[in-house]
Amino acid sequence: MKQFLDDNFLLQTATAQDLYHHHAVHQPIIDYHCHLDPKMVAEDHRFRSITELWLGGDHYKWRAMRTNGIPERLITGADTSDWEKFEAWAATVPYCFRNPLYHWTHLELKTAFGITKRLNPETAREIYDACNDRLQNDPGFTARGLMRHYNVEVVCTTDDPVDDLTYHRMQEGESAWGVTMRPAWRPDKAMAVENPTGFKGYVDRLSAAANVDICSFNDLVDALQRRHDFFHENNCRLSDHGLEEFYAEPYTDTEIAVIFNKVMSGTELDDLEIRKFKSAMLYIFAVQDYESGWVQQYHYGALRNNNSRMMRQLGPDTGFDSIGQWQTARSMARFLDLLDSEGHLTKTILYNLNPADNEMVATMLGNFQDGSVAGKIQWGSGWWFLDQKDGMERQMNALSLLGLLSRFVGMLTDSRSFLSYPRHEYFRRTLCNLLGNDIEQGLLPFTGYEEQRVRQMVEDISYYNAKRFF
Amino acid sequence: MKQFLDDNFLLQTATAQDLYHHHAVHQPIIDYHCHLDPKMVAEDHRFRSITELWLGGDHYKWRAMRTNGIPERLITGADTSDWEKFEAWAATVPYCFRNPLYHWTHLELKTAFGITKRLNPETAREIYDACNDRLQNDPGFTARGLMRHYNVEVVCTTDDPVDDLTYHRMQEGESAWGVTMRPAWRPDKAMAVENPTGFKGYVDRLSAAANVDICSFNDLVDALQRRHDFFHENNCRLSDHGLEEFYAEPYTDTEIAVIFNKVMSGTELDDLEIRKFKSAMLYIFAVQDYESGWVQQYHYGALRNNNSRMMRQLGPDTGFDSIGQWQTARSMARFLDLLDSEGHLTKTILYNLNPADNEMVATMLGNFQDGSVAGKIQWGSGWWFLDQKDGMERQMNALSLLGLLSRFVGMLTDSRSFLSYPRHEYFRRTLCNLLGNDIEQGLLPFTGYEEQRVRQMVEDISYYNAKRFF
Amino acid sequence: MKQFLDDNFLLQTATAQDLYHHHAVHQPIIDYHCHLDPKMVAEDHRFRSITELWLGGDHYKWRAMRTNGIPERLITGADTSDWEKFEAWAATVPYCFRNPLYHWTHLELKTAFGITKRLNPETAREIYDACNDRLQNDPGFTARGLMRHYNVEVVCTTDDPVDDLTYHRMQEGESAWGVTMRPAWRPDKAMAVENPTGFKGYVDRLSAAANVDICSFNDLVDALQRRHDFFHENNCRLSDHGLEEFYAEPYTDTEIAVIFNKVMSGTELDDLEIRKFKSAMLYIFAVQDYESGWVQQYHYGALRNNNSRMMRQLGPDTGFDSIGQWQTARSMARFLDLLDSEGHLTKTILYNLNPADNEMVATMLGNFQDGSVAGKIQWGSGWWFLDQKDGMERQMNALSLLGLLSRFVGMLTDSRSFLSYPRHEYFRRTLCNLLGNDIEQGLLPFTGYEEQRVRQMVEDISYYNAKRFF
Repeated sequence: MKQFLDDNFLLQTATAQDLYHHHAVHQPIIDYHCHLDPKMVAEDHRFRSITELWLGGDHYKWRAMRTNGIPERLITGADTSDWEKFEAWAATVPYCFRNPLYHWTHLELKTAFGITKRLNPETAREIYDACNDRLQNDPGFTARGLMRHYNVEVVCTTDDPVDDLTYHRMQEGESAWGVTMRPAWRPDKAMAVENPTGFKGYVDRLSAAANVDICSFNDLVDALQRRHDFFHENNCRLSDHGLEEFYAEPYTDTEIAVIFNKVMSGTELDDLEIRKFKSAMLYIFAVQDYESGWVQQYHYGALRNNNSRMMRQLGPDTGFDSIGQWQTARSMARFLDLLDSEGHLTKTILYNLNPADNEMVATMLGNFQDGSVAGKIQWGSGWWFLDQKDGMERQMNALSLLGLLSRFVGMLTDSRSFLSYPRHEYFRRTLCNLLGNDIEQGLLPFTGYEEQRVRQMVEDISYYNAKRFF
Repeated sequence: MKQFLDDNFLLQTATAQDLYHHHAVHQPIIDYHCHLDPKMVAEDHRFRSITELWLGGDHYKWRAMRTNGIPERLITGADTSDWEKFEAWAATVPYCFRNPLYHWTHLELKTAFGITKRLNPETAREIYDACNDRLQNDPGFTARGLMRHYNVEVVCTTDDPVDDLTYHRMQEGESAWGVTMRPAWRPDKAMAVENPTGFKGYVDRLSAAANVDICSFNDLVDALQRRHDFFHENNCRLSDHGLEEFYAEPYTDTEIAVIFNKVMSGTELDDLEIRKFKSAMLYIFAVQDYESGWVQQYHYGALRNNNSRMMRQLGPDTGFDSIGQWQTARSMARFLDLLDSEGHLTKTILYNLNPADNEMVATMLGNFQDGSVAGKIQWGSGWWFLDQKDGMERQMNALSLLGLLSRFVGMLTDSRSFLSYPRHEYFRRTLCNLLGNDIEQGLLPFTGYEEQRVRQMVEDISYYNAKRFF
Repeated sequence: MKQFLDDNFLLQTATAQDLYHHHAVHQPIIDYHCHLDPKMVAEDHRFRSITELWLGGDHYKWRAMRTNGIPERLITGADTSDWEKFEAWAATVPYCFRNPLYHWTHLELKTAFGITKRLNPETAREIYDACNDRLQNDPGFTARGLMRHYNVEVVCTTDDPVDDLTYHRMQEGESAWGVTMRPAWRPDKAMAVENPTGFKGYVDRLSAAANVDICSFNDLVDALQRRHDFFHENNCRLSDHGLEEFYAEPYTDTEIAVIFNKVMSGTELDDLEIRKFKSAMLYIFAVQDYESGWVQQYHYGALRNNNSRMMRQLGPDTGFDSIGQWQTARSMARFLDLLDSEGHLTKTILYNLNPADNEMVATMLGNFQDGSVAGKIQWGSGWWFLDQKDGMERQMNALSLLGLLSRFVGMLTDSRSFLSYPRHEYFRRTLCNLLGNDIEQGLLPFTGYEEQRVRQMVEDISYYNAKRFF
């Protein structure tokens, strides 16, 4: 029986262990998409407790606690102490067997704090105190310290076009601390016309940020372009879009101008108008990215804010989202084809949330690989609910069978936490394990030229592919 | 090479064997959803032959026989003898390798009759005679005897609101025989407005059963409430709904009143009217269940009665149903959200038929877990076509990754047969095997506190979670 | 560690090795659906180079090369030499680890040419020269020679109703060379009314081929029937249809007559008209097949020609297709039910492209198995993107669980290449491996009667089931 979480965790074969310990473990981390708070990085935030770090905003843990019958006040309540919340979490942990939270929790305790005890009600106090002592007193246990500890080379945060990038700009002269933080462009709100009031408010903020008086759709595009240029000047090379599905409705410029005026007058749009507008915006965003030589990312398929009672109470991103169902293959193909046929298709990463779409996405890539760049169209690593061993394996297996795993840009955290970096370790162990199993079963050669290729492939997917791609 | 169907069947590791033999095997069975005939229980039915027991209504076996090229007269023919039908089934069994029927058949022979020979044309007569001898002569081989033999504690049958529950009421004074039989509420016909004639006939029967003159939609609701109360008085605590998909169309009370009058006048409804009516009924059913503190179950996704020729010949539930495709995530979310936001969401179990929906359903649960009860919203065990090793494993794996397996209420037979109880054994073996594999691979800890938790978890999912939940 | 591609490749257990080497390896190949060029067979084509054979039309390899960053001129360019193309392919091969191309490539080198070196930039020239030497000089390395080498008994090509079957007729007197080549009927263009110009042109060609003046829909049906008869006279017993989804719209003969006249006048049809017309044609095709006692095949679910730039440059079938998403369960059921209820449902094979449909299709079969022929309705082996180890395993596992694997007609190449026959070997190894694993784990018995049944089952699925079915 293998010990839980030992050095060969997830590595079932000697070959997997060889690949991981000789090739994967040493690679720096390029975390090309995350939701870290730039302010905390810039100010090198020190955490008051493990509760702040773990339970302050992690809606994965909140969901697990609610499922475990923990009352809301012990999860997000304003009147409960850090210890009370931690204790409620510690009571839930042993009920998380087989859930990725069980692995993340103990990997984080081990790799950040050196704690190998399992968290449960009996160990809760001891672990709580030990973590807090390090967080409060150890010079290495700040936001930046943790990033250095995990050998992070670059992080790309997620930023709205109206953001002034204050904290990114503060970074510029300070590369001495060893990690590069770059912004990424997330203009979702500029196409959220389903809510006229919200959209109008956003246009006002954009107008101010861009210093453009937005009276027409062309003004909107102009303002976005100015902010795009501003982001580019501040080292942004990456965009990201959160979509339910893809939009590729035929439209005319006149129609979009009319729709824009309509929504700005506060009128609700019908479904087709919304789809046309989103189609236009997606196209314009993509052309802007192409012209600046950026990489574009699409995260699609989430059904968000399903619990309206809790939405009113806690707001979005608090654990009430789930996997949706859309048939978006045709729209996705049309959208990418439109860009390709006009010569405007930049490097692209597609992330699906529903694993039932895996094979559709994996084969979509090949339609638009044009030989200009190896792996120009990428399928993003298992996202959100799929960011766990099974989800990673299914993504890598389908990518292998239907595309070229060798050209994969690999892992990202997509996380709000400074403790999520062990997910890169988890990913690399899983990758090495898949390759090791194949080799041991005679499905892959492992001598001479091919052995070197496998070894290089581990390093490429862990680090070099991303470094070359971005 | 392991022997077929030995004591460690399905248990690949020593840990799995330990968990099964020390924790799972002893637990009683709570079969909280089945289709047993209450009359046969109440009258302690004695079976004339293994053919009656196995082939009298088991459309799984009928489908396999048709696929194997057996003519219909040897399957459901009125003019063929029990032996002829059994012989045809025995000829089909060796063609069922890798189909769950092969396992069910031999598990049932072994656990009920102590027969370990394999059924095939050479053994057919001997096995037929041996089974019939026990069924006809052994005092323990009646409907009740079989339930006691399998350590059944509770069964919940499936009953229409118009049922008088005669056989359940006959039970009440007789708990001496050791098994509790309760009714469950299945009001599907009260929303089947796609067929005006059938619906009208049903309303007439409901009117008589409830002693309410149903002249309006309000009368319909009133009549259903009276029957709901009657079921409650007779120890019903569980409802069940068979749906193609979920319905959450906006509607007004006035619209529903008009639709009701229209369908009662014999007029066909259009698709939107049908969806509105079903939306209203689903909501009303759910509120009734909430107010009575019941658990509600939804089985969705079957495409039924696909063969109209055989529908005319044999009627429904004769082996001509299959897995359908619907995109019901949004409706399901809206329906549950409506109930939650009005404080009317009772404990709920969701069963999908298409495994492509697995991850969608598994993540839907979390949107409505409110911390009031551990595992308030449940994902039902692999249903119908998915009620086999692969289906169970996929359901438990997805539930583990996307929710809390620890809080799962576990197995039910959903069966029409008194011989289906070994499916609980099959489920428990599969569960223990998953846990055993994880432990042996170092994916789960198995010492100290955590070892006790794993051991308790096996007992919980086998028995205690269901006992607490219902 | 097992050696790559040794004699027990894919065979993980001793039982699997026993089954493969004693039962599967010796069976002839019935390749009942492929896209070989009848002219090359009839003329016993000799290939000028391995580049012609491998890279002349294999869009799987082209896609992989584009993904690997190879410029188009080295893939399909008219001005690049055979060696340049081969060199570019050889550079891509080591990036295909875990892609089926890696296995196909080396299986073909080994089984056709006896080459066991791995193809990579270092071995490229040597392998290129060795292959070309055999292709140019060895008498056995022609189109027919390769077919004999692989023990092919029958191939069914894919032919349009307007084809004159010249090359099939040339074959008739020549069975001496040992392989039977038959045509198969693929009338897709006769329902492609979404493009009026293309359709009209096709009707003209059909008119000429059938010697029928096509002025009405009835004339169209009459012309198709004549060609159907002509195909039958030339030993065709199989049809094939490429569909996005199934069509079962209600229609009247008058409507179809009007739609036909409309499209023939060059007018674009609306979506409903297109669906009605396709529904009518699918029905008529199926009745024609039933009346002639043919087997009908349906390949559905591909999203084709997604890259309009490359479509203009290279035409269809050049590597720009992918897996689509449709919810076609209900239409598929209605279509098959209509045929069944009128007594017109012939033996049928269904192939889905999206594995998310697997369980839906696997359960659809059972709705229309009528006991007349074992396995009357078949689920085709993993198709196109799914024609690889994982796809085969998922298809066989789902078929096993939801139908009768024993009755499966097994593998076909669906290929344009004379080197694709090792896919039958690959399939048989995969089949034996699944059975071997089950047996070793005690999931299947393997003594006495049941051992003989397993052994026969391997031979049946490899060869005899197809021989009996067609």
